[in-house]
Amino acid sequence: MINVVNLAEKFSLITKQWDPKIIAQLNDYHFKIAKIQGEFVWHSHPETDEVFLVVDGKLTIQLPDGDLHLSRGELCVIPKGVEHKPAAEQECQILMAEPAGTLNTGDAGGERTIEETEWI
Amino acid sequence: MINVVNLAEKFSLITKQWDPKIIAQLNDYHFKIAKIQGEFVWHSHPETDEVFLVVDGKLTIQLPDGDLHLSRGELCVIPKGVEHKPAAEQECQILMAEPAGTLNTGDAGGERTIEETEWI
Repeated sequence: MINVVNLAEKFSLITKQWDPKIIAQLNDYHFKIAKIQGEFVWHSHPETDEVFLVVDGKLTIQLPDGDLHLSRGELCVIPKGVEHKPAAEQECQILMAEPAGTLNTGDAGGERTIEETEWI
Repeated sequence: MINVVNLAEKFSLITKQWDPKIIAQLNDYHFKIAKIQGEFVWHSHPETDEVFLVVDGKLTIQLPDGDLHLSRGELCVIPKGVEHKPAAEQECQILMAEPAGTLNTGDAGGERTIEETEWI
């Protein structure tokens, strides 16, 4: 049985910001969604690139050399090892793709780390 | 320099149906977009899963056990080795994710095979 995943339905189930949930698995990669607002922490993923796609709202990704600004229907790839800090003034819905087990806080760790990302 | 990829802009550059173009690379995976209409060919990818996300329109994926129907904002993962045939009555815009080098016709080959998928 192959599931059809409706992004809007899945986002409607998310009640907490900065709490990514897995919605699909592609080989050993996870597709995750999250609602975010405010600023995250500076971090990098030394082992992997990371895709961000904005499903709704506006996303800023702070980088050492300046900010990236993404609106609905826009995506970017943060290369492995590049420090970045996601942020959003208003609540923003994002889709991420990265290898299973990739931590949200990357090499930074700390209290905002989600050790076990759950499916939704 | 990290690019922001606007899906609508990229789709506006595509003039030919069933001609996937690469828009992003995540490690050794490609994110591709395509405009499709009509029926493709039955095929499978013995080595990899494949993600389909509908950006606009309606997509049918025929499977041995029945059809999957996806609308805008819906995605599915076709597991590796599962025979499938994408189809769309009206022109549909899709985003796909799969390992770089995955052929559009998988194990079926034939005249609709795109040997070298290009970036757009």
